[in-house]
Amino acid sequence: MYSTRVPIRALSNPIRQFSTTTRLQALSGLKINSDRLWQTLHETCNWGSAHRYGENPIDTGMARLTLTDDDAHVRRWLAAEIQKLGCTLSVDQMGNMFARRTGSKKSAAPMIAMGSHLDTQPRGGRFDGILGVMAALEVLRTMNENGFQTNYDIGVVNWTNEEGARFPKSMCSSGVWAGAIPIQKAWDLRDIHDPNVTLRSELERHGYLGDIPCSSDARTGFPLGAHFELHIEQGPILPENNRSIGIVQGAQGYRWLTFTIHGKDAHTGTTPLSARQDPVLAASRMIAASNDIAKRHGALASTGIIKVPSNASTNTVASKVTFTLDIRHPQDRVVHAVQEECLQSFAQIASQNGKGVAVDWTLDTDSPAVEFDPGCVASIQVVANELVGPDKSMLMTSGAGHDSVYTSKHCPTAMIFVPCHDGISHHPTEYCSADDCALGTQALLEAVVHYDQVQWESAAAGSE
Amino acid sequence: MYSTRVPIRALSNPIRQFSTTTRLQALSGLKINSDRLWQTLHETCNWGSAHRYGENPIDTGMARLTLTDDDAHVRRWLAAEIQKLGCTLSVDQMGNMFARRTGSKKSAAPMIAMGSHLDTQPRGGRFDGILGVMAALEVLRTMNENGFQTNYDIGVVNWTNEEGARFPKSMCSSGVWAGAIPIQKAWDLRDIHDPNVTLRSELERHGYLGDIPCSSDARTGFPLGAHFELHIEQGPILPENNRSIGIVQGAQGYRWLTFTIHGKDAHTGTTPLSARQDPVLAASRMIAASNDIAKRHGALASTGIIKVPSNASTNTVASKVTFTLDIRHPQDRVVHAVQEECLQSFAQIASQNGKGVAVDWTLDTDSPAVEFDPGCVASIQVVANELVGPDKSMLMTSGAGHDSVYTSKHCPTAMIFVPCHDGISHHPTEYCSADDCALGTQALLEAVVHYDQVQWESAAAGSE
Repeated sequence: MYSTRVPIRALSNPIRQFSTTTRLQALSGLKINSDRLWQTLHETCNWGSAHRYGENPIDTGMARLTLTDDDAHVRRWLAAEIQKLGCTLSVDQMGNMFARRTGSKKSAAPMIAMGSHLDTQPRGGRFDGILGVMAALEVLRTMNENGFQTNYDIGVVNWTNEEGARFPKSMCSSGVWAGAIPIQKAWDLRDIHDPNVTLRSELERHGYLGDIPCSSDARTGFPLGAHFELHIEQGPILPENNRSIGIVQGAQGYRWLTFTIHGKDAHTGTTPLSARQDPVLAASRMIAASNDIAKRHGALASTGIIKVPSNASTNTVASKVTFTLDIRHPQDRVVHAVQEECLQSFAQIASQNGKGVAVDWTLDTDSPAVEFDPGCVASIQVVANELVGPDKSMLMTSGAGHDSVYTSKHCPTAMIFVPCHDGISHHPTEYCSADDCALGTQALLEAVVHYDQVQWESAAAGSE
Repeated sequence: MYSTRVPIRALSNPIRQFSTTTRLQALSGLKINSDRLWQTLHETCNWGSAHRYGENPIDTGMARLTLTDDDAHVRRWLAAEIQKLGCTLSVDQMGNMFARRTGSKKSAAPMIAMGSHLDTQPRGGRFDGILGVMAALEVLRTMNENGFQTNYDIGVVNWTNEEGARFPKSMCSSGVWAGAIPIQKAWDLRDIHDPNVTLRSELERHGYLGDIPCSSDARTGFPLGAHFELHIEQGPILPENNRSIGIVQGAQGYRWLTFTIHGKDAHTGTTPLSARQDPVLAASRMIAASNDIAKRHGALASTGIIKVPSNASTNTVASKVTFTLDIRHPQDRVVHAVQEECLQSFAQIASQNGKGVAVDWTLDTDSPAVEFDPGCVASIQVVANELVGPDKSMLMTSGAGHDSVYTSKHCPTAMIFVPCHDGISHHPTEYCSADDCALGTQALLEAVVHYDQVQWESAAAGSE
């Protein structure tokens, strides 16, 4: 067994550590097949392609919602490819697919996984999640054709319902695997368009309700030795900084709140401003204030949804308004500080205009900041340095949630980001160039090989 | 014929003018029957009562949408009452009902009308419009039982579809009468819940598609010599100032605009504030700014509706936002100035946050300020002074639109306001006390009698 945590000093200066580890080759000598990767990715996108936006065959988005017929097709295809490669396929009770390729040491230790997801948003693109799984498959294919063996077993994971777009719980099945979401709750999730259909009924329909408990528990479930995830950045930071590889050290903390501002409906023509309880005005001042507060803290505060009752009219002060607030920062204490200042500011605003409004709020989601495993991050940093150099790579924090956020609670985890055009994601025109897909896949291969070597040697040194 | 405008000096100091007109009695000596008024109003509210909120029989609101079966019932009842009083009923091609009571001089001049409407909002109250028609009927009843005759013919008008709640065009049939709305457009209005039903098809169904052209034209239509309208204030100004009669000199100008703010959808977790085009943030700052600008001008600016696309989500910057802006002031130049400053401010805001947003806007309604007729206003002021004194009455401007706004374009017009509880209107709990209903009705009677006398004497003096 290798340890699940590398020594802390690895975090403080990982490059130096590995550059002095003389026995390690920084790169494997293997080379992934860029054309095969690109072709495979787009061929499998025929299952679920939608929202054509251009004339080239691949100029479409995707609508491959989890456990639809299209998703079942691509799952069966993946299962067949895994078998062709001589790997073992395991499916757990959430339909998570685990492909395992035996390492040279025939160790019983949990495999080093490369995971992501094949489901998409209803108006999604061809790269979010899909690239991570196709890259992992390409890594196995490259190793197979080169007769290359890692020390430990390695493998691929396709996590079910990462998007939460059809069954509304994002990172759903990695969440169950990590023990953060009760499986019954996940099974009972209803199709947002057809309440007669549950996630479990769709698992059953497609034959993807596996036997293995969905758990990281070593005795009953399918534990992982590590989890590496290649993903498009979904933001503009890499392209704006002219970098091609993001070494993802962790994920931002975020809190989602919903505010309900209670005013009083009144005629806009007959009610003086001083006599009003105007929730739209109050909410507007609150949203503006939240932005000012976030800016002062270098944090993010965003309102995606604002709603007045359906009977609202141009000449009536609305009776109430609801709006969401999404606060993010890599440090939880900053997320909390922004929330606290917003609450104070909103209370002030509520009493400032006319006769004031009442404010209710709920905390809908609390996702603390995540720090990925220093050993995994170090391996990515070493190989990124070799592949593109420090000027073309950068350490960063994931703004979005990913399956890796949940896996990080139970196994060493890190992510590799590659740029996507204009930072656009969750949109049909989402695009990652063939070169960037290939580079990310090569980095994934190298990181896994490097990590496998480091772990093996560290374990060997420990047993000496 | 009497002139349609009294001399300008009447406006500059109407009270003094009339207090020095020695031949005129300020009050008629008639007394309306308060109990009969209250009973009649609430009895007729059985047609369309809805939204019970308390235990007393009258503790309900109203849902008597125009040209529904309930509205047809109350129309037939009104027609019968008019006949009982010996008045002539005319119905025009918009279903407007005109009841005419012959004056002592048997003049062929257009009648002095007391008008309002019997239709309500779907969640309306028992007083908005209804009080004006029931008060007018009570004035005729009082005159009849006292054998009182005005000089000119007087009468009652029930205007069709004032609310615009079922067929979406408010002050619809007074608008057609005034030539502001083409009759075909009004006839073609569709029921908001059933597009197979038009306003014209409902007029036909109930037998209210009259023969008389809906027009103020003296040769073809049903011209009016004057239009007095008693109405609840629908605002808090009278109760807050402890006044019982509002002498309404005119109606505010207002403009309704719709703004569409075009941003770009982006992931709230992965998109730095500096890279965003966030329409919710921009719209919020704009709405706050419009309020600040309106306050500086002593005007009203209100946003009743704000909408993001239905696929908006907590963790996505919205692609666009639409919001309405309703700007009001008694002076058109102030309405225009507020609009101009808002447009300038919005343009600045659009470029201020992140990568900026684009702003589109439309002017949906432009209703210039209306000044009511100085002679009509003067008559109301004289009788209010006699009835309650200057400490309990006040000159004011209507914040809302009324049929009187349209009639004022074609005949001398003014309105009398009475307080409603907490300024609440367009709501089931809308309430005007029996005493205030009676006082308003007495004021309506006195104003019509006074105006009739002034006009007759002025015409007689002119012919001497």
